[in-house]
Amino acid sequence: MLEKLKQEVYEANMQLPKLKLVTFTWGNVSGIDREKGLFVIKPSGVDYDKLKPSDMVVVDLDGKIVEGELNPSSDTPTHAILYRQFPEIGGIVHTHSPWAVSFAQAGMAIPACGTTHADTFYGPVPVTPQLSKEQIADDYEGNTGRVIVDTFKKHELDTDAVPGVLVQDHGPFTWGATPDKAVYNAKVLEVVAEMAYHTMQLSGHLSPSVPQYLLDKHYYRKHGNNAYYGQSNPKSMTHEHVL
Amino acid sequence: MLEKLKQEVYEANMQLPKLKLVTFTWGNVSGIDREKGLFVIKPSGVDYDKLKPSDMVVVDLDGKIVEGELNPSSDTPTHAILYRQFPEIGGIVHTHSPWAVSFAQAGMAIPACGTTHADTFYGPVPVTPQLSKEQIADDYEGNTGRVIVDTFKKHELDTDAVPGVLVQDHGPFTWGATPDKAVYNAKVLEVVAEMAYHTMQLSGHLSPSVPQYLLDKHYYRKHGNNAYYGQSNPKSMTHEHVL
Amino acid sequence: MLEKLKQEVYEANMQLPKLKLVTFTWGNVSGIDREKGLFVIKPSGVDYDKLKPSDMVVVDLDGKIVEGELNPSSDTPTHAILYRQFPEIGGIVHTHSPWAVSFAQAGMAIPACGTTHADTFYGPVPVTPQLSKEQIADDYEGNTGRVIVDTFKKHELDTDAVPGVLVQDHGPFTWGATPDKAVYNAKVLEVVAEMAYHTMQLSGHLSPSVPQYLLDKHYYRKHGNNAYYGQSNPKSMTHEHVL
Amino acid sequence: MLEKLKQEVYEANMQLPKLKLVTFTWGNVSGIDREKGLFVIKPSGVDYDKLKPSDMVVVDLDGKIVEGELNPSSDTPTHAILYRQFPEIGGIVHTHSPWAVSFAQAGMAIPACGTTHADTFYGPVPVTPQLSKEQIADDYEGNTGRVIVDTFKKHELDTDAVPGVLVQDHGPFTWGATPDKAVYNAKVLEVVAEMAYHTMQLSGHLSPSVPQYLLDKHYYRKHGNNAYYGQSNPKSMTHEHVL
Repeated sequence: MLEKLKQEVYEANMQLPKLKLVTFTWGNVSGIDREKGLFVIKPSGVDYDKLKPSDMVVVDLDGKIVEGELNPSSDTPTHAILYRQFPEIGGIVHTHSPWAVSFAQAGMAIPACGTTHADTFYGPVPVTPQLSKEQIADDYEGNTGRVIVDTFKKHELDTDAVPGVLVQDHGPFTWGATPDKAVYNAKVLEVVAEMAYHTMQLSGHLSPSVPQYLLDKHYYRKHGNNAYYGQSNPKSMTHEHVL
Repeated sequence: MLEKLKQEVYEANMQLPKLKLVTFTWGNVSGIDREKGLFVIKPSGVDYDKLKPSDMVVVDLDGKIVEGELNPSSDTPTHAILYRQFPEIGGIVHTHSPWAVSFAQAGMAIPACGTTHADTFYGPVPVTPQLSKEQIADDYEGNTGRVIVDTFKKHELDTDAVPGVLVQDHGPFTWGATPDKAVYNAKVLEVVAEMAYHTMQLSGHLSPSVPQYLLDKHYYRKHGNNAYYGQSNPKSMTHEHVL
Repeated sequence: MLEKLKQEVYEANMQLPKLKLVTFTWGNVSGIDREKGLFVIKPSGVDYDKLKPSDMVVVDLDGKIVEGELNPSSDTPTHAILYRQFPEIGGIVHTHSPWAVSFAQAGMAIPACGTTHADTFYGPVPVTPQLSKEQIADDYEGNTGRVIVDTFKKHELDTDAVPGVLVQDHGPFTWGATPDKAVYNAKVLEVVAEMAYHTMQLSGHLSPSVPQYLLDKHYYRKHGNNAYYGQSNPKSMTHEHVL
Repeated sequence: MLEKLKQEVYEANMQLPKLKLVTFTWGNVSGIDREKGLFVIKPSGVDYDKLKPSDMVVVDLDGKIVEGELNPSSDTPTHAILYRQFPEIGGIVHTHSPWAVSFAQAGMAIPACGTTHADTFYGPVPVTPQLSKEQIADDYEGNTGRVIVDTFKKHELDTDAVPGVLVQDHGPFTWGATPDKAVYNAKVLEVVAEMAYHTMQLSGHLSPSVPQYLLDKHYYRKHGNNAYYGQSNPKSMTHEHVL
């Protein structure tokens, strides 16, 4: 079942080592079929070079296995919560990519320091509060999802405009309309974390951030009805903006 | 039309991932035919591993498409302004290479800390002022080019001696006599940014810079009538400078 | 003799350059046959691309050569002491991986900054005291092993829960149930050292560490009777933790 | 002439990009035939992937071309001075490797922070004073060699025990008994510079250094009559140092 989605999720998982986002097996990608209410996720602890599309595990939105002979990723309950609470997302990625983890461990959001950030994230990438002793003791992975959802609610963030988060002391989760786009966002998050780190060191440990109007410009240059980056937008800005 | 230039621009674009200067599609190279007043540029948002020489877009100096089925790079108006205002340049490169972006985001010029820098850049690589809200709202990419030109005018910089700039909050643009040389300068700028960052950290956040006479020596060892580096200069210094 | 173990130790050694843990020949892996009281170790100073399984040297627990035509690693006495004093370990790795060495040279333990660390190391990776002049002058490599053992005794550390150490001014040693697991731990140690460094810089040179209950959760998620990460544990947590 | 030495120097040059010590053409290796009083050096500004053994240039100890159709490296006069003043060396390497250059640009010696350093460099890697305006104006490359020689004389350094130096504002030169060993030392210098940088940042910008007796132990473990590292020393320490 869901053979096409399994292939898609498999290929998205295989992008993680190519993009240097994972060490060993420390990452997972999932993708959802919203009509069926099922999602497909990488099995737990399987080496990337042994992974096959048929290893992908199908689970329902309670995180229970529907099809597959392997245990799904131990982070499956986090994915399940996110799919339930963020109805517009189609794919989720979790990694331990080192620059993003460094910010998560420091308990710091990644500031929007420039246009590379603004092209993908409309504002800082938030960091969740630490999970409490109780949240960790019982249903830890589910509570990891809940603390992400709470962070987005509290700060009134749009999951489309800010397609990622840092779980404090842990690491990044990103998402997107498809598993492939979630992987793209995972890479962008790692790259902007690296750039932000060096920007902050150059600036004497401050967190410089771009003006709001530059954030607007770059984000909407690539997203929404007036986007003009890439090939999918019929209006090239070079036709509009005569010099 | 311009088949030779398209091939040259295509090959220069393909150097960017090889030199580790781009993530995904975040970079573009163009090259100009000064006689025809037309330039050739990478299409917007196309993966490097799918790029073909025939995908290159031909545009005029107003940034309008003359030939090509794909949208040109969204940075095309910036390239157009630079070609119009800097008549001696033959190729332009824009990337989001991480060390150069870190300085751009910090709003800091790259100081000339040593001979590696002086071999290519005769003085610091300048950073532009931030664009104003108005400059961003209307013809953003054109104004990106204008703020570069204004920076060079204000500081009375020679585009030949300083073949690159950082656009504040954004990233580097470099240029050269050919697209290939512009790519070379893009790589040098990234390397000297990395070295300058670590030099500054070692020096306690100061910006050490080389003495003027060492800057002169290294720059003119490789450039101008008395250059003696490489194979194109008939006089080897080993014949002149008997020990 | 010990052909299977030689092959295993050979393959574990060959992982070191693949995992970017060694420069030149600066690393070695050994593995022990506890029943025979013999261990197998890489020969000293042999290039990885010339290494063969039959080059592996068999030594006894006094560090004396039992079989093999090449000199064993100069660190052999350190391995011998560790095998004698830590009866539960089956493989040992020594490298000069750069992030771990940086902490060793600074004389600093690697703090447990997050879950990536907690998944493998149940607490900080300790650093030994400096060896004294006398410890260096006579039986230096043996004393390197003894200072490791003393550090674990003094801090009452469990070698299973903390499978590695930094020898001050020198570098990391890791171990595990098998040579392969010791190599895994060597890579994790390097990755968490890199992340801890950047976390500490972001946090203003402090050493942030995870709460004890998060350390517990992540360590025991992967280790012991209640582990549920990976495929070898019959109970998938997704069956237990209904959301 | 000198076909064997040309091949050796060619292969040593080709190691530089493999060891990630050069960008573009920014590095050169030479090797000397002491009996003939001639040395062989890389031509100036030739790409590594186009380099052939027959491109190597033969020059005398005044730096004059004896054989070869290409211009020799522009740093040839520096090599010539070093061969004349350091009679025990057989090969020289110059690179712009980024960590070593960062220390050179900061005008700081690389402190001996640990055993990785001590295994190859018996003490800090010194940095020369800046060249004066006069030293740069006339015979710059020759004076680069002279300032290295003066630095070694002033600090009474042994070129065998400290096989490298940083030229201030410029970068590293290393040497060795053969071109191949000089390349080895160039890589070690880069690796220990990287480790020293991070050690210093962890230690609050101090320059920690190993105790003298540890420096002695590690240096003489690999060098001189009592060395016992590797395969070329008949006495394995595992036979001597019974635990």
